[in-house]
Amino acid sequence: MRQKANTQVRLKARPTGIPQPEHFEIVQAALPDLRTGQFLVRNEYLSVEPAMRGWVSAAANYSDPVGIGEVMRSFAAGEVVASRHPKFAEGEKVMGLLGWQEYAVSDGRDITRKVKETDLPLSLSLGVLGLNGVTAYFGLLDVGRPRPGDTVVVSTAAGAVGSAVGQIAKIAGCRTVGIAGGPLKTKLCLEAFGYHAAIDYKAADQLDHALSVACPAGVDIYFDNTAGPISDGVLRQLAVKACVVICGTASVASWAPAPMGPRVERHLLVKRASMAGFIVFDYQHRYEQAITRLAAWVRQGRLRYREDIQDGIAACPDAIAGLYRGENLGKRLIRLPS
Amino acid sequence: MRQKANTQVRLKARPTGIPQPEHFEIVQAALPDLRTGQFLVRNEYLSVEPAMRGWVSAAANYSDPVGIGEVMRSFAAGEVVASRHPKFAEGEKVMGLLGWQEYAVSDGRDITRKVKETDLPLSLSLGVLGLNGVTAYFGLLDVGRPRPGDTVVVSTAAGAVGSAVGQIAKIAGCRTVGIAGGPLKTKLCLEAFGYHAAIDYKAADQLDHALSVACPAGVDIYFDNTAGPISDGVLRQLAVKACVVICGTASVASWAPAPMGPRVERHLLVKRASMAGFIVFDYQHRYEQAITRLAAWVRQGRLRYREDIQDGIAACPDAIAGLYRGENLGKRLIRLPS
Repeated sequence: MRQKANTQVRLKARPTGIPQPEHFEIVQAALPDLRTGQFLVRNEYLSVEPAMRGWVSAAANYSDPVGIGEVMRSFAAGEVVASRHPKFAEGEKVMGLLGWQEYAVSDGRDITRKVKETDLPLSLSLGVLGLNGVTAYFGLLDVGRPRPGDTVVVSTAAGAVGSAVGQIAKIAGCRTVGIAGGPLKTKLCLEAFGYHAAIDYKAADQLDHALSVACPAGVDIYFDNTAGPISDGVLRQLAVKACVVICGTASVASWAPAPMGPRVERHLLVKRASMAGFIVFDYQHRYEQAITRLAAWVRQGRLRYREDIQDGIAACPDAIAGLYRGENLGKRLIRLPS
Repeated sequence: MRQKANTQVRLKARPTGIPQPEHFEIVQAALPDLRTGQFLVRNEYLSVEPAMRGWVSAAANYSDPVGIGEVMRSFAAGEVVASRHPKFAEGEKVMGLLGWQEYAVSDGRDITRKVKETDLPLSLSLGVLGLNGVTAYFGLLDVGRPRPGDTVVVSTAAGAVGSAVGQIAKIAGCRTVGIAGGPLKTKLCLEAFGYHAAIDYKAADQLDHALSVACPAGVDIYFDNTAGPISDGVLRQLAVKACVVICGTASVASWAPAPMGPRVERHLLVKRASMAGFIVFDYQHRYEQAITRLAAWVRQGRLRYREDIQDGIAACPDAIAGLYRGENLGKRLIRLPS
């Protein structure tokens, strides 16, 4: 199989904050012939996620930044359409760091996993059965270590990671409180994701009061996707021995330099609490365990998800900025026509 | 045995920041007769420690604040001089929350422990073999969990807790870097307490640079007694999977409201690091284990200590403020004449 051309989204300029359309360009590139040990993936879904802001940032991060002129790094899911690799066969579905492009030539190293849940939509491999679900699973269960009866507070509670955190916490026997922006998202928290309480941080000019009402015995676990003033409010309500899982910092536009906020040491000291940063890539050796359980919960209807699917690669350049504008209700994906 | 009067230091007014002499008054009180189940302790040493600022603060804390007109809460060590209690005999040495006063009537509940290390000075039961040593022991070993080869950074490194942390870390096979204020204290770090490197934060207008030179592979464990700008500098140098043990916040004059500082979430996230608050009183059931080991290290000459002993109860009112002025070299104690 041979393609004439490959449409790619490349990084054109390095953003200082949230990447905007002007930081990307869409180009047509030739597809090279496959060498031995390579295979060709036709991407069906491209992922869009908050962490991609960090991937293009020059500031210290957990991986090298995407270079100017390079295809934008992203997870994608698709089908192997040609192969000269012994372990990947035509027709297999794969998910990995295949980038914002129609076709990806891979030697297997950028493949996160083969998608085995063929009874479920392939798009889930980029969301609730992908890094989002796995992030929720390990961040909550391994770092937060909830006990039944704990009060678990989640920020960006209706988002792709947050909604999974809330539902897994409920499966673990916890009381769940979601923080989200706007009435649509808090409604989603309560009606779709089963949170026991939901707080609209945009409406709550008294976030502290709303939190203390929702968490009368304090917050045992805070799964933090935002940092910023939302976290400041939650930290004032920690229970003794509370655990703050730092998964993302979506509310902070730039970390160069770090913005100022109220110091946290006294809260942590008085409450013997902990804050721990967490990156899902450290758990790669255990992804299959998590995805097996997550898929079972999805099939049982205990783990629900929302998707925000945009059609066509032209949607990519504004897609990350749109996340930070809070315009999506569910995991944002770009679907490519076959 | 009967005493005519008991000299006490009482809290006269509630400070908003660091307690000053005007917040205390020295009074003569009558000593009541002992009831059944009580005994009388003649205090030989009164303790002075940074945490006492929190004990008189109205802000949220881990214990109720000392009431106005009450004897200032403090640890003290002394001898049982009269007893109507079956478990405490005349002549026994005890350490506990006996307060800033010459004599304390106790029913045993305010006694932390009987002092069994009678071959060593009684004053040590308030320092390296008391809460300071035990704080260093559990904070470093249980919360920080050092591995041989780790780089351990300690703030207030020449202080009563910090000097023990540095030496226990060295016993545990770590590389130790002390941060202290002024050339006398850094000299003490290197010569008395065996730190591999010492940084004078008052001289280092480039604390970041001094830290990066002293910690070329980053900071694995930061034992934080100060919070504030010193901690901000250390957090910029964390190694992957670093642990910050929050033991005290000596550099912060008031937490009502919390002062602003650079947000920490990104450091913790990128480095998968943790910050954990720690209060030694949670480890009461294991004090004897720690003190047995600490006393053995003292006898072996592997755990050294400095004391700053002032004579007479009149030294009490200014003693906490003096700690925060950084004027003491070693554990501050008030010795009472017998």
